[in-house]
Amino acid sequence: MPMSKRPSPAKTPTDPAESVTRDLAEARAETAASPGSASAGMGTAAPATEPKRTRRGRPGYDRETLINKATEVFVARGYDGTSMDTVARELGITKSAIYHHVTSKEELLRLAINRGTDALASAVESESHREDLSALDRLRHAVHSSVLILIEYHHSVTLLLRVRGNSAVERDALEQRRQIDMKIRALVAEAIAEGGVRADFPPGLVTRLLFGMVNSITEWYRPSYPVDPETIAEAVTAMAFAGLAIPRRE
Amino acid sequence: MPMSKRPSPAKTPTDPAESVTRDLAEARAETAASPGSASAGMGTAAPATEPKRTRRGRPGYDRETLINKATEVFVARGYDGTSMDTVARELGITKSAIYHHVTSKEELLRLAINRGTDALASAVESESHREDLSALDRLRHAVHSSVLILIEYHHSVTLLLRVRGNSAVERDALEQRRQIDMKIRALVAEAIAEGGVRADFPPGLVTRLLFGMVNSITEWYRPSYPVDPETIAEAVTAMAFAGLAIPRRE
Repeated sequence: MPMSKRPSPAKTPTDPAESVTRDLAEARAETAASPGSASAGMGTAAPATEPKRTRRGRPGYDRETLINKATEVFVARGYDGTSMDTVARELGITKSAIYHHVTSKEELLRLAINRGTDALASAVESESHREDLSALDRLRHAVHSSVLILIEYHHSVTLLLRVRGNSAVERDALEQRRQIDMKIRALVAEAIAEGGVRADFPPGLVTRLLFGMVNSITEWYRPSYPVDPETIAEAVTAMAFAGLAIPRRE
Repeated sequence: MPMSKRPSPAKTPTDPAESVTRDLAEARAETAASPGSASAGMGTAAPATEPKRTRRGRPGYDRETLINKATEVFVARGYDGTSMDTVARELGITKSAIYHHVTSKEELLRLAINRGTDALASAVESESHREDLSALDRLRHAVHSSVLILIEYHHSVTLLLRVRGNSAVERDALEQRRQIDMKIRALVAEAIAEGGVRADFPPGLVTRLLFGMVNSITEWYRPSYPVDPETIAEAVTAMAFAGLAIPRRE
């Protein structure tokens, strides 16, 4: 069952979210290669309060870009061990330029994580309620969408998967994640009850393994990975629902 | 295809590796509840150079137990941020009691990680060479064994999966992991070539997803998890090779 209706967001060159999935080093190299470009424009005087769409390859340090870049720094260096001084240095801007947009490192973490969780939650929510589909098909769509979102927002989702509940922001993130997990688990249970999914393993275990596979993509996915997001999503759903083995003909 | 030949190690009460999978807090509570027991016996004078098997519930701080407990501390607190002072405090022993057995924190990390990698490498190695089996069956066995080993040595494997190459020890661990991955990937490619595994996705992607699912078990597995290791291994192989969906009868 091919599911190619949803365009692969990471392949759309003009998508503003693309910078989330670019390597920070790459972005820095570009910035360095073009002095005086818009990428150097976020000083203390920059009054950007609304997200500003920038041209490809010229990351402007408006609020959206700040969040995207900070997300990458948190992922690359670890959130706990990264000070706002380090974030500022890595982004090549001043700390006050960051505080122009956010009040604290915690707020930056919340904004960074919310990217991914909001997208995941709304995808799972909308797939869960499609009454025209069997529970199995809704589950399959939810898994497929989750893979694409995870790839599109992979730094954000990586942060989400790493939080351990050390602060109010982290506990909120864990709670959002738990809500998403519960919706998926309910879908798995419904698919089992409907006879669409094998009943020989507990729904909780099936959910953990399914999303273990999905979430593991954050570990290795890079925009340079030679397989496109749609094919990755197809591979996950094919393996999870139909299996890798080719049935032997009798 | 049930694969229940290999007994589940974590269920064998006398297995010395059991302490690896016990919660540190539990172990400490036990230690506190039995003053004067063997669990308090690791002082600077303890000349344990060989692993010593201790009775269940009475962890002796010989070399093996030290490594097991330190592994748990590294997993719980993060390796980088954990000093030898902290390890000693968490274990309720002196730092010199630790240095009696190892020369550095790095060495402790190497020993901690080697538990898991050695077991994984030898399992994958032995499954790879069984000439009586198809590549698909060898792959299935390798996945099944990997799940059981990951559960038995789950703190060790968790550490392995977290290292980022920040030191010689970490780079060695990454290289061992890469060797194991390459063997699995070769098995996947062989199974595809043999016609046992679907050919519509690249072997590298299939391997990543397969072991993404397997490795994700470290994220949630606890000895208190209500499903036994053998059933978890069965669920992984069933899902990966046969799929979750029940084929519709025409």
